[in-house]
Amino acid sequence: MKLKEIGEFGFISDLEKKYKPDTSEVLKGIGDDAAAFLNEDNYAVLLTTDMLIENIHFRISDISAKELGFKSLAVNLSDIAAMGGKPQNVFLSLGIPDKISYEYLTDLYTGMEDLKKQYDLNIIGGDTSSSGNDLFINIVITGTIKEEEIIYRNGAKINDKIFVTGYLGDSACGLDVLLGKLELDENHNNYFRDAHIKPKPQINEGRTIAQLKLANSMIDISDGLASDLKHICQQSSAGAVIYEDKIPYSKYMNEISSLENVEPLDYALYGGEDYSLLFTAAQDNKDKLYDIFNSKLKTSLFEIGEIVQGNDIEIVLKSDEKKKIVKTGFHHF
Amino acid sequence: MKLKEIGEFGFISDLEKKYKPDTSEVLKGIGDDAAAFLNEDNYAVLLTTDMLIENIHFRISDISAKELGFKSLAVNLSDIAAMGGKPQNVFLSLGIPDKISYEYLTDLYTGMEDLKKQYDLNIIGGDTSSSGNDLFINIVITGTIKEEEIIYRNGAKINDKIFVTGYLGDSACGLDVLLGKLELDENHNNYFRDAHIKPKPQINEGRTIAQLKLANSMIDISDGLASDLKHICQQSSAGAVIYEDKIPYSKYMNEISSLENVEPLDYALYGGEDYSLLFTAAQDNKDKLYDIFNSKLKTSLFEIGEIVQGNDIEIVLKSDEKKKIVKTGFHHF
Repeated sequence: MKLKEIGEFGFISDLEKKYKPDTSEVLKGIGDDAAAFLNEDNYAVLLTTDMLIENIHFRISDISAKELGFKSLAVNLSDIAAMGGKPQNVFLSLGIPDKISYEYLTDLYTGMEDLKKQYDLNIIGGDTSSSGNDLFINIVITGTIKEEEIIYRNGAKINDKIFVTGYLGDSACGLDVLLGKLELDENHNNYFRDAHIKPKPQINEGRTIAQLKLANSMIDISDGLASDLKHICQQSSAGAVIYEDKIPYSKYMNEISSLENVEPLDYALYGGEDYSLLFTAAQDNKDKLYDIFNSKLKTSLFEIGEIVQGNDIEIVLKSDEKKKIVKTGFHHF
Repeated sequence: MKLKEIGEFGFISDLEKKYKPDTSEVLKGIGDDAAAFLNEDNYAVLLTTDMLIENIHFRISDISAKELGFKSLAVNLSDIAAMGGKPQNVFLSLGIPDKISYEYLTDLYTGMEDLKKQYDLNIIGGDTSSSGNDLFINIVITGTIKEEEIIYRNGAKINDKIFVTGYLGDSACGLDVLLGKLELDENHNNYFRDAHIKPKPQINEGRTIAQLKLANSMIDISDGLASDLKHICQQSSAGAVIYEDKIPYSKYMNEISSLENVEPLDYALYGGEDYSLLFTAAQDNKDKLYDIFNSKLKTSLFEIGEIVQGNDIEIVLKSDEKKKIVKTGFHHF
């Protein structure tokens, strides 16, 4: 169906009915000049906003509308996770070119359903517009957290251990598969494609670390380990040393690591979009962290290095050679 | 200067320094995974988000970067005004095509300075991306208001009087001037162009009406009187009668009203982007409203009709003929 057949206000009215908030904390959802919601006393509001632009962040031929909906929401949830917060409200804005059908948009929303249910989110606003050529998506997510629990990027302390909460590089490898730069067997193709398209926002991991006050600084890996660790170091006025042999790779990455064109370390350092959490914590918290990740969260935790004085980020290679990391990940300009 | 010369993170780092929040309510501004801010106890958070897409909402040849910055912020402030709220935090996201220079972006931010100062706003987040062809702007504004003061669209009551807080149609006329559909003398050209490009968000008017609990429903006129009054009526399950001879026009509009191609009533009903407030209030509040607008706010208030039973929106023409308004304003699809 063409969008024209339902019209802008028809579309918005459908969304208003479909996404009627089911919590008294939301005073007003879709359908007024602004959304209105309450926050518990002594809790801060977290707010993150991300834009996804066709042919910059995604190509319509590479990703289904459902997958695009999922990923758009997931990467924003990851930002709330990286502060230690609980996500609550979603605002989805769409700039829609003529080529996009009503069904495409419905699928985009459907792709968000799983995460919406899993994290008890309400979709309470946004904006709709026509667009000349490209599909534009802007997502805003608000979350909540006690002020004293927030984990910023700037709190890393000298001698902190550096941890990541998942395998690195899989997403970047998946992008190469999508772009046709890398051709693997079906099994591996699917694994890496999924890693790129269906990232898992680590909300429970972020919340738990924050509530137990176990980390001094945290960020999610969106630009690549090199770039995101640099953010923590710069903002904390510190340096870091990481170890090549401690960087966690998936079984699938290890299986293809000897292939030409596959450089796991490059994927991990410069690839980005893994959406694992990267955090630093005092040595004293290490046992407790591993215990919680193993027994409560039942997800992986990997120590990959430590925060040091200075402002260099260095990597100790498997050859024992120490190299300064200068290059960082993808920059938009 | 090309944006490449400063780079994405250089640009963000500059913004972070420039827009360091000057209030303890903002815990974290630009430069982390999400912004964090506090809201006073018993106050709700208001949040509105708007996208402006090149060649849909504006043409770079028609409006300077400063004017675009001003207008982008103003129209979002207007949404907060329409709830009765106090605006607080701004999140500006930019999808930037190659043709846009560093200076252009700097001017865009500069264009926001006046409103930022006037309303004591903090710019505390956003997103930056490259874009293929079109400049893409997304603005999020949060505001705050006591829960019991919020004025929704859905509260209009039968026999409420309908008010607008400014002249109608000037902005739509200005758009015709910009598009070259209308050619006037320089004086009139400038007046109407300014009305389109420099709308005044009616924050003080909205706040005052809300704090004194004088209105039952409110909206800002962004799509045109017909469309926005329809939103109030539909959501309030009511109808409305307005009077052609009560619709307020500027001196400039009256001066050109006899020209060919100029139809003030059409501009007012279907043109939009006036960003006056449209609200409904009990007859009993009328004197108090006029008193406050005259003596405290020192801005104009116009009564244009009343809320009635049913669901029709009708206009009593100067000829005394009563007509149903069926058409509404601009729809994106």
